[in-house]
Amino acid sequence: MYKNRLILLILMVGVTWARVEEIHDPEQLTGHKLVNNRLLEDMATNKYTPPEEKDPQFWYNLAYEELAKRLELPQPNAKKAKNIIFFLGDGMSLSTVAAARILKGQRQGNTGEESSLSFERFSHSGLSRTYCSNAQVPDSACTATAYLCGVKTNIVEIGVSAAVDYNNCTASQDPVNRLTSIAEWAQNAGKSTGIVTTTTLTHASPSGAYAKTANRLWECDTDVASYGVDPTQCIDMATQLVTQVPGKNFEVMFGGGFGKFVPSTIQDLHGNPGERSDGVNLLSKWQAQHPGGVLVSNRKQLLSVDTTSVSSIIGLFQSQLMKFHLEADETYQPTLSELTEVTIKKLSQNKNGYFAFIEGGLIDYGNHYNKAGYALDEALEFEKAIQLAREMTDIEDTLIVVTSDHGHTLTIAGYPGRGTPILGLNHHDTDVNGVKYSVLNYAVGPNNYLDSEGNRIDLSDQIGGNDFVFPSYITQAQGTHSGDDVGIFASGPQSHLFTGVMQQSTIPHLMAYAACIGSGPKVCDEV
Amino acid sequence: MYKNRLILLILMVGVTWARVEEIHDPEQLTGHKLVNNRLLEDMATNKYTPPEEKDPQFWYNLAYEELAKRLELPQPNAKKAKNIIFFLGDGMSLSTVAAARILKGQRQGNTGEESSLSFERFSHSGLSRTYCSNAQVPDSACTATAYLCGVKTNIVEIGVSAAVDYNNCTASQDPVNRLTSIAEWAQNAGKSTGIVTTTTLTHASPSGAYAKTANRLWECDTDVASYGVDPTQCIDMATQLVTQVPGKNFEVMFGGGFGKFVPSTIQDLHGNPGERSDGVNLLSKWQAQHPGGVLVSNRKQLLSVDTTSVSSIIGLFQSQLMKFHLEADETYQPTLSELTEVTIKKLSQNKNGYFAFIEGGLIDYGNHYNKAGYALDEALEFEKAIQLAREMTDIEDTLIVVTSDHGHTLTIAGYPGRGTPILGLNHHDTDVNGVKYSVLNYAVGPNNYLDSEGNRIDLSDQIGGNDFVFPSYITQAQGTHSGDDVGIFASGPQSHLFTGVMQQSTIPHLMAYAACIGSGPKVCDEV
Repeated sequence: MYKNRLILLILMVGVTWARVEEIHDPEQLTGHKLVNNRLLEDMATNKYTPPEEKDPQFWYNLAYEELAKRLELPQPNAKKAKNIIFFLGDGMSLSTVAAARILKGQRQGNTGEESSLSFERFSHSGLSRTYCSNAQVPDSACTATAYLCGVKTNIVEIGVSAAVDYNNCTASQDPVNRLTSIAEWAQNAGKSTGIVTTTTLTHASPSGAYAKTANRLWECDTDVASYGVDPTQCIDMATQLVTQVPGKNFEVMFGGGFGKFVPSTIQDLHGNPGERSDGVNLLSKWQAQHPGGVLVSNRKQLLSVDTTSVSSIIGLFQSQLMKFHLEADETYQPTLSELTEVTIKKLSQNKNGYFAFIEGGLIDYGNHYNKAGYALDEALEFEKAIQLAREMTDIEDTLIVVTSDHGHTLTIAGYPGRGTPILGLNHHDTDVNGVKYSVLNYAVGPNNYLDSEGNRIDLSDQIGGNDFVFPSYITQAQGTHSGDDVGIFASGPQSHLFTGVMQQSTIPHLMAYAACIGSGPKVCDEV
Repeated sequence: MYKNRLILLILMVGVTWARVEEIHDPEQLTGHKLVNNRLLEDMATNKYTPPEEKDPQFWYNLAYEELAKRLELPQPNAKKAKNIIFFLGDGMSLSTVAAARILKGQRQGNTGEESSLSFERFSHSGLSRTYCSNAQVPDSACTATAYLCGVKTNIVEIGVSAAVDYNNCTASQDPVNRLTSIAEWAQNAGKSTGIVTTTTLTHASPSGAYAKTANRLWECDTDVASYGVDPTQCIDMATQLVTQVPGKNFEVMFGGGFGKFVPSTIQDLHGNPGERSDGVNLLSKWQAQHPGGVLVSNRKQLLSVDTTSVSSIIGLFQSQLMKFHLEADETYQPTLSELTEVTIKKLSQNKNGYFAFIEGGLIDYGNHYNKAGYALDEALEFEKAIQLAREMTDIEDTLIVVTSDHGHTLTIAGYPGRGTPILGLNHHDTDVNGVKYSVLNYAVGPNNYLDSEGNRIDLSDQIGGNDFVFPSYITQAQGTHSGDDVGIFASGPQSHLFTGVMQQSTIPHLMAYAACIGSGPKVCDEV
């Protein structure tokens, strides 16, 4: 009793919660309430409540709407997906999704938390388990193999099984170890196919649709040779894309990475030297094989293409990665929505339907640089493209699946009040030194913002810009991926299959089932 | 070209990735690959691959199993849920779920990542948006109001709408602002009801089932008075539980918190003084009102109850919180599975069915203390109880819904190899100083493990015990909640409704629809 009174007394004279904790012995700590009077006061006061939310009926009505939406869904049936659009938000952790949703609302002048991304309104959702065969936390290569080829493999490998070790060219050539992707399954069924990315066409994610390689960095012959491997034995990914099945049959290929396709002896259309050492101009080769095809390298060219009069389109909009939406010249570099629009227009001309892979690839880069402002903006560009795709297509015949390859260590911390700027400081809490902290933080990254004695500094003067590097605990040049599950969001025929918790490698098999392609079970078999 | 060769040279002489980054100007950084040769080497080598996973067919078979499971599901229909068991993992972020799954597998001697928690095998999953009316990141009180009363409210408030401000006793008494819970809806339909928690019966989460209060800490009259509020005007939650609807009708109440029910002048059955100042022994009162009821306070008493011969059971197994499973005397304190078993046995005697709320409440405490070992162990106790509940009940008439109230800032970072002990160090990566880091980290917590110059110290000698305090970036006495979505996992009648992204406050309305209770739409209306 005496001790209790002492604690109460200390609280009353305003000593912080941290201090109060210290006087507890460990035994007591275990039994102690996490929320004491003092902390509660901080949590509960000076916070804004939207007036409409004070009426309980507001929430009842919202719940009844959400229920009605679920009840209105067509019952699961034997309906087949003529078309599949698979959207991949690279590094779009569920924390990124929640934060992007809040930013979307705040950009519209609202508190933000009540907002929704387009794909969050899809009828079905599930969780995807992202680990790879030899990795608790995966990279974008082995995960691309999972969600496009339906097989988990080792980290940094694409389109080959886990029997292939890193850099093992010989094993990657063994037919037993080589995988096929859902893009190939779609082609075999007479469908049109295409890949779109904001990174490079030879980057890990889109490569899952066409490449087989023991090293994700073997993007051109120069890359292969740099590992002491003979590029004529182990074909680089750019060459695979242009000369091998299924890449050579893609009717749409949009992204960055021009340099991987042209020799170092010439300049690409963006004024930079090519990266190839073998002297091969893969784009000339492609053009020769696709007389009705067209190459575009900027927005104006893209938007002037008559999709009904060309057989196929390759667009290489930067020499390397495409630029962040926030940094791009919008008259030069097309948006992901524009790429999506042209893709759907082109591919939908096939009466047998199509498979499109569309990646928001720079969400991951934003998170790696700990520039949450960029990551969230890229996520919003991504959700706009998805909204457009849903509007341009028929929900009765087009299955849209949205997911991510892996998480990031981004968290939304503390007890910020409603409407707190998601890219700003939490004004309702401080650390033990009385220093405020940002709402968003990363476990790993370049800047821990500590002074010479290891204390966190005040970020008030630095935070706020789109390119602010958010704080992190473990110092590395860049942030790392995380190992928690990512979301799956589905709309259209057979979307009801995309729920529960599943292996990431199951995703393409579910899409194949829905579209009656590939070698596995098909909804058409059951009619 | 010269620059490229320079970089390659630097790589070859073994300078770290961090150093390489520094020589890039910002322009180049944006276009630079995140994975360079050096980092790739670290990521891709010295990692274990389970042999069976090297065969692509392994993944095809797994995918076909996951597909078949979804195809075998009964089609959504008009089937009604006679019983509802609602499991709440307090503070069980999706990162906690993934980490607990890995720990489960590792305890069984496996690599771990391939393991599954019982509820992860449920047929349906969705995402729950957890913000509260005035809070971007919520507490357990406003969220309990959402998932049990179907209405979002202000942080730290329970069972009243957001029109009620913190500590506003008067507003909390206004009938317009007072909410009803799904427990009351179930009672009105003639069902039996019960609450189970590993915290206290008056803790924020279970209180959502019966209490209406402007402050979650008003657990007994002494607590109310400590705020200068008259406890005869604003009734404490323990008194509400024993004397008011719906609490007084609960047939099962299991948890800790004995002290809140008995006067400070007497000792509770665990040998500690009570906490009440009003001299009221609420348990004597309860006993008088429930002549067929029984009070139990330890495991032996609990397991000796003949559930067919008692009208109701109140179990208060500790004076305050129940103890962590890892610290508890298992002969004295029952496990959550044992509590669940007795609950189902008792409640299932009602031919009209039942509603049970069962909480794994110490997952949150483990995460608040940054003792991930405890948090994950409590999550595993939770998943065992769910497994038992699914086995004891009929999937045809019993809907089981599992979710959490809010996230925590726990992340699974870096690129640890397959089978890396989830509670240990990542042996495949270091920070810029060459110091290894733990796989699990928190954004906020008591220990940042920095030396006097602000550099992270080596944790090799400290990490490993179940009670290790995991590192965090922002120093506070304890970790905080996070604002990302939490998972919803459902099995049984109408479980197909629990998918997509939804407001947390929609959850009880969906359960009510399934069980044909409450004032909203009901599946029975549609037959």
